[in-house]
Amino acid sequence: MRKVAIVAAGESKFGDRVGKEYEELISEAYLEAMSSVNNIEPKDIQEAFWGSLAFGGSQLGNMSALLVDGINIMGIPTSRIENACASSGYALRYAFFSIAAGINDIVIAGGAEKMQDISRATRLYWFGVGGDIKWERLSGMTFPGNYALMASRHMHEFGTKKEDLAQVAVKNHKFASNNPKAQFQKAITLEQAMKAPMVAYPLNIFDCCPLTDGASCVILCPAEDAKKYTDTPIEIIGAGAGSDHLALYQRESLTRIEGAVKASKMAFDMAKMTPNDINVAEVHDCFTIAEILAYEDVGFCKKGEGGKFISEGLSDIGGKVPINSGGGLKAKGHPIGATGTAQVYEIFHQLRGEHINQVDGAETALTHNVGGTGSSCTVHIFKRMR
Amino acid sequence: MRKVAIVAAGESKFGDRVGKEYEELISEAYLEAMSSVNNIEPKDIQEAFWGSLAFGGSQLGNMSALLVDGINIMGIPTSRIENACASSGYALRYAFFSIAAGINDIVIAGGAEKMQDISRATRLYWFGVGGDIKWERLSGMTFPGNYALMASRHMHEFGTKKEDLAQVAVKNHKFASNNPKAQFQKAITLEQAMKAPMVAYPLNIFDCCPLTDGASCVILCPAEDAKKYTDTPIEIIGAGAGSDHLALYQRESLTRIEGAVKASKMAFDMAKMTPNDINVAEVHDCFTIAEILAYEDVGFCKKGEGGKFISEGLSDIGGKVPINSGGGLKAKGHPIGATGTAQVYEIFHQLRGEHINQVDGAETALTHNVGGTGSSCTVHIFKRMR
Repeated sequence: MRKVAIVAAGESKFGDRVGKEYEELISEAYLEAMSSVNNIEPKDIQEAFWGSLAFGGSQLGNMSALLVDGINIMGIPTSRIENACASSGYALRYAFFSIAAGINDIVIAGGAEKMQDISRATRLYWFGVGGDIKWERLSGMTFPGNYALMASRHMHEFGTKKEDLAQVAVKNHKFASNNPKAQFQKAITLEQAMKAPMVAYPLNIFDCCPLTDGASCVILCPAEDAKKYTDTPIEIIGAGAGSDHLALYQRESLTRIEGAVKASKMAFDMAKMTPNDINVAEVHDCFTIAEILAYEDVGFCKKGEGGKFISEGLSDIGGKVPINSGGGLKAKGHPIGATGTAQVYEIFHQLRGEHINQVDGAETALTHNVGGTGSSCTVHIFKRMR
Repeated sequence: MRKVAIVAAGESKFGDRVGKEYEELISEAYLEAMSSVNNIEPKDIQEAFWGSLAFGGSQLGNMSALLVDGINIMGIPTSRIENACASSGYALRYAFFSIAAGINDIVIAGGAEKMQDISRATRLYWFGVGGDIKWERLSGMTFPGNYALMASRHMHEFGTKKEDLAQVAVKNHKFASNNPKAQFQKAITLEQAMKAPMVAYPLNIFDCCPLTDGASCVILCPAEDAKKYTDTPIEIIGAGAGSDHLALYQRESLTRIEGAVKASKMAFDMAKMTPNDINVAEVHDCFTIAEILAYEDVGFCKKGEGGKFISEGLSDIGGKVPINSGGGLKAKGHPIGATGTAQVYEIFHQLRGEHINQVDGAETALTHNVGGTGSSCTVHIFKRMR
């Protein structure tokens, strides 16, 4: 198995991009990635892997050709991978496989989503797709409602407080406040986070990620070739993934995302590392409770101690593992299919020492990308190449 | 790169399966595959790759967890791959990567589709997804309309006759007539095929594949381990894929599917073979003209000679390369996301010498799976392991 590196990353501006087509959003990401890399021409890219839920826009499916066409690399193998919010995490996984196998030498993995251009009725429909439609959506359950159940149960079992949830929002808005790509470039106070309008108890509007248009991508190659393309590549040293029952009622626990636990173990085993070895991470904070679950599922803290982890500042810069330093899904935004590789975009810049909210001396990193309410998950571990 | 083999294949009954959930359809396929293999338990399967357009059923997306749950292998990495009608062709491609890379030792690739349980309005919507929505579907173009344009142009450029198209339907209905899994288990005459009600000139109802519920799957492992699991594994010796513009108006030619030409070349180069080396094949006959284009794009005959190829019996048993011996999409049926691995199901049995319409001495085979009107394509080449 060949070692695999990432040599470039790009991301569009996130937010309300109504009027921009999928092709234009992915072009923004692609052009940024290509502008920073040496000795790679468009014709050198051999395969493209795209994550998308096809939430909005005009092409609600079979869009992979549209994306390669949009960046003028038509003709190569390409496919859409759809695992709800973990779509481009899986696109990255398959891109990694193709380089590791020796099938390809240079590939692109990314994602694109348009969410702002569709009616409220259609939004509800597509959000339902993140969870189980038959037993949850058609019974009136909403997506925030699902995560509200997890949050309530976490508060009940472990004494997690509403303030702990709010602190996640405060931290991630702070990180987004100086990120020019972020949807919300504005810090909020704990009081604002606590007193915002309720969505589904205990989650208020500041506990929920926004609807976001955006795209992201990364360029991969064999690690042995990486220095030809950039002075500071990053290596993928662990790749894990897992799944769990689609519907919440079938799961063993509401306070653990089993697929994330499995994905983390697989990635750490491959990397021969433990959570203590990670310097910086991006985790899936579609709701504030999701970030707290992630701390525990990945193993940054023990089960039940996620609330303490955020409130003691352990996921802030200067803490044990700074998390979501680009603003996270919560404040940078969550263009569903683009989120997995948008997480890698942050990690890429952290490990190169060039991030807007740089973590000093970051040498290792982790991304954690969850689909739906936890039915799928990918975890990747990275290190800076020397 | 490790060599990769297929050790089992399964397929549900195709046709009108209203009342059966995705989980039940994939179970039928899975149980057939597992019943023929030795020394593989459900817990041995390490990853699952599923093709689906999510055309019908209740879960119109994020369904990968539902499928692993349905066959009781929950917890493993799994994703949905969507490339319209080439979805499970790409699922097979990524499964192949994962074994070739040494990431996994036993995986399942398959697909499932439900198409019979939805309204006519919704059907039109989803069929539109196969082509370009903005410039084709929203201008009133239908999917048969797209292929009718290709057929008309082929007739104009090369003198292909309506009888040539009809002969494809006659051949594939003949092959389906003794296939217990097929949607249409009935032979038709040339006269019936010629005189059926028109859909979009020159394509009548017998030139069009049906709407089909169904599922299929294959089990893959490293070739070096394959004999542990079955006496007669088949090896994947070539894997190619390609793409072309989504909308017909953008393409260089209406009579060539460029993605299929590229996919074929890539697969033949990997296999170190030419089209003359192939003993039996399954090609993507969503419409009769598509099978004629496939003869030419894969290279079984020269450009423009596809009409002659069918009418001279060269794709029938006893001809140069027997094609679609299980009945093809045309008569076995076309459950969109399941079709790619359903083609491999036929090839698997042909190369083991146990097919219902056995081609004597078949040692090598090819599958050709097209997405939409040709925006994506995968081609795989197989040989019987000795």
